[in-house]
Amino acid sequence: MIRASLQQVIAPEDAAADHTSLDPQDWTELRAQAHRMLDDMLDYVATIRQRPVWTPMPPDVRQHFRADISRDPVPLAQVHREFMNYVLPYAGGNVHPGFMGWVQGGGTATGMLAEMLAGGLNANLGGRDHAPIEVERQMVTWVRKLFDFPDSASGLFVTGTSMANLLAVLVARTQCLGKAVRRDGVGQSGLRAYASAAAHGCIAQAMDLAGFGSDALRLVPVDASFRMSMEALRVLIAQDLAAGLRPFLIVGSAGTVDVGAVDDLRGIAELCHEQGMWFHVDGAYGALGMLSPFVAPQLEGLSAADSIAFDFHKWGQVPYDAGFFLVKDGSQHHETFASPAAYLRRETRGLAAGSPWPCDFGPDLSRGFRALKTWFTVKVHGADAIGAAITRSCELARYLEKRVSASPALELIAPAQLNIVCFRYRAADADRVNSRIVVGLQESGIAAPSVTTVNGKLAIRAALFNHRTREADLDALVDGVLRLGAEGK
Amino acid sequence: MIRASLQQVIAPEDAAADHTSLDPQDWTELRAQAHRMLDDMLDYVATIRQRPVWTPMPPDVRQHFRADISRDPVPLAQVHREFMNYVLPYAGGNVHPGFMGWVQGGGTATGMLAEMLAGGLNANLGGRDHAPIEVERQMVTWVRKLFDFPDSASGLFVTGTSMANLLAVLVARTQCLGKAVRRDGVGQSGLRAYASAAAHGCIAQAMDLAGFGSDALRLVPVDASFRMSMEALRVLIAQDLAAGLRPFLIVGSAGTVDVGAVDDLRGIAELCHEQGMWFHVDGAYGALGMLSPFVAPQLEGLSAADSIAFDFHKWGQVPYDAGFFLVKDGSQHHETFASPAAYLRRETRGLAAGSPWPCDFGPDLSRGFRALKTWFTVKVHGADAIGAAITRSCELARYLEKRVSASPALELIAPAQLNIVCFRYRAADADRVNSRIVVGLQESGIAAPSVTTVNGKLAIRAALFNHRTREADLDALVDGVLRLGAEGK
Repeated sequence: MIRASLQQVIAPEDAAADHTSLDPQDWTELRAQAHRMLDDMLDYVATIRQRPVWTPMPPDVRQHFRADISRDPVPLAQVHREFMNYVLPYAGGNVHPGFMGWVQGGGTATGMLAEMLAGGLNANLGGRDHAPIEVERQMVTWVRKLFDFPDSASGLFVTGTSMANLLAVLVARTQCLGKAVRRDGVGQSGLRAYASAAAHGCIAQAMDLAGFGSDALRLVPVDASFRMSMEALRVLIAQDLAAGLRPFLIVGSAGTVDVGAVDDLRGIAELCHEQGMWFHVDGAYGALGMLSPFVAPQLEGLSAADSIAFDFHKWGQVPYDAGFFLVKDGSQHHETFASPAAYLRRETRGLAAGSPWPCDFGPDLSRGFRALKTWFTVKVHGADAIGAAITRSCELARYLEKRVSASPALELIAPAQLNIVCFRYRAADADRVNSRIVVGLQESGIAAPSVTTVNGKLAIRAALFNHRTREADLDALVDGVLRLGAEGK
Repeated sequence: MIRASLQQVIAPEDAAADHTSLDPQDWTELRAQAHRMLDDMLDYVATIRQRPVWTPMPPDVRQHFRADISRDPVPLAQVHREFMNYVLPYAGGNVHPGFMGWVQGGGTATGMLAEMLAGGLNANLGGRDHAPIEVERQMVTWVRKLFDFPDSASGLFVTGTSMANLLAVLVARTQCLGKAVRRDGVGQSGLRAYASAAAHGCIAQAMDLAGFGSDALRLVPVDASFRMSMEALRVLIAQDLAAGLRPFLIVGSAGTVDVGAVDDLRGIAELCHEQGMWFHVDGAYGALGMLSPFVAPQLEGLSAADSIAFDFHKWGQVPYDAGFFLVKDGSQHHETFASPAAYLRRETRGLAAGSPWPCDFGPDLSRGFRALKTWFTVKVHGADAIGAAITRSCELARYLEKRVSASPALELIAPAQLNIVCFRYRAADADRVNSRIVVGLQESGIAAPSVTTVNGKLAIRAALFNHRTREADLDALVDGVLRLGAEGK
């Protein structure tokens, strides 16, 4: 056996013989420093409540990053100190329970540790036959079962739902126009897609990037609950058909970004079936609601989708970034992306075995090990605990809604459908006043909601995604809004 | 000051009051486990030479990942043990100095630690005003200066060069067709792009994904050194112009994937200038050769590009994934991707300040903190040390070439232009024999080269990217090839 001779090539750990290796000269020193770094980060997460949600960067901090990076090495301890002094205190704030500004999860220590393992392993998940890809496949199976998709389904980690929605447009395109579109381009194919006017902008962008142009996405008016109007949708499709265009894709939103509306997924599924169209669901944060007994019934029809896009870094609390794309018929997914290449030759044995590879299902050949932090998060916390945190965030939204409704000075702009509440301080010049309140709250460090526009009204948006958020954080938000509103009158 | 009242909302660390938080009940226990995990990973990297490069997964390991993940929580220590037993020993092998199969960097402990920090910070680099984005901007400045690009240049971290090349096609498209293409689609615009026949397949795929179809990329024959023939390129462009088509983009390769050829970048720059075409460079691994006094002269003309795509996770040794896209005229880059959206409203103060945001320069709104591991790697090791490791990998390729040339049983298929050597064992049935040798080597755990096809001949490809690789590793490779070749006769 050739394997037995392996010992012959093992050289002693002789850093001196290896000038150009980037391994440390002294592992003991590196190790001590590494443990300090780990302790600092655990402290950061464990004591996050003692910090402001967000702190504006003073000019000298911003200036610090305008300097040139020297070509010479800087000791790790010093770079770490720079991180502690200039980066950590001025982070975006989504680890903090007072962060409610945008749809971002809070992360966990578990996810952080898994990222450390992934960083050391340095796996490329593009292809080849190794265990990290099996971890990703196990997550694909888990996702497939969560959404009640068949064995033939395929899935892939991507950066986020913006990317996953682009992949959905591409797969739907191939399904409609056939594989030749990959060679011939989209030309004047007259394809039209449909999504709610409240859908995320990345869907129009996906149509743009895929060559159809954003105008090839029809934005369908919403009803009073901000759900896509099925009637208007049918009318638009009929008009396009009459004009000789080709309706090929409907994107349902499972949790709109502004108010958390869920489209009539069952209705869209039936319409797609009837018209031979692709049914994709943008479930950026909402889809993982399947884990929550409270949210799951609101997602009825989701399993009838042809594809689903969602993020583990939102309600799933996995550290950024960990988006996911799931396709019911894996062969259509494969047909859209697989390409032959001499340097990607497959074998039945050795490192080049294990085909198909993830790179056959998406545009990335270089792919980090997003699956590991997701695998750790789901296993260590358990799907039920993640589901409970999702349910809790919806309960908190109801608590906030109640507090808003009980305050005569406040106006509810959009009631909580899931875990997002839009409201504002009543004032003559409400847009300006509420915009100022939100900036004031962010700068106070107490809470970080954001601003959006609903039905033409500027609203304070509280999106409750952090698993650490409690009633007290919402009380602080409401009290802060009332105080800053009164001050500004 | 409202800031002074922050203490009022700080509740004591009371995990019991917070059932649904995913924070640990016991931080002390979590901390102890975290330090064990860190030690295990440091041990893994420090003693990597004592392991086989790669080990095939036994059936029970593969089977392990076919099991369902339970909905209940599993202790972190147990999931970590699973990782140590089922994932770590069966990794792809690119951390190991004997890995030469594909173009993958080796990673560093520094990069791993930075990933840990990033995992804890959980930053979303899509937008908003926070220090992590300043870190990315500092890296953009560093990259810009490395390539001698002007102040007006813009840059963005992406997963990898496949994605960066797609972005390049999109920016070049907008520059040629105007902003209206985003709304109207590409239609029958007759756009044509050009790249060498040895270019990476992701460029044809980028043309496919962008809606042009892969046939809209003309593959230009290469010369004896595997560089794109400038004569053939001129002929193709002239033919397309005569046919009423619109040549808009030439992609130069700075380091082809099979043999490491660098196109005539200066010549392409001049042709693009003359024809009003976009000049993009796919420098997936080669572009960072600018850090090496040996490689930099071979990249002459690179700075004349309109855009450059490359990866920090290859020659830059940053852990996966850390691709980068650089554009000379940032306004053209911005024009291709920026979109208005109510929930992405910008302010001049507060968290929503700091426009433009990274999401205005690419398709991702959810973006992890790739910049941090890159920033740590460049600062801690220093650009010169990374450059020295790059030079060394080219020297090692010359050493391997010499050993191959000195062995009558071996045939050099493509000489080392940078750090890739293609060769094979001479045999009657050479394709089959060499394919078997490569699988045998991989399964031996001694070395992991790959197989590719050069001029119709199946070759053993040794791509030397790992900063830990030494002459002894190449000796082991050559000895292994000779032994396995002789055995199979």
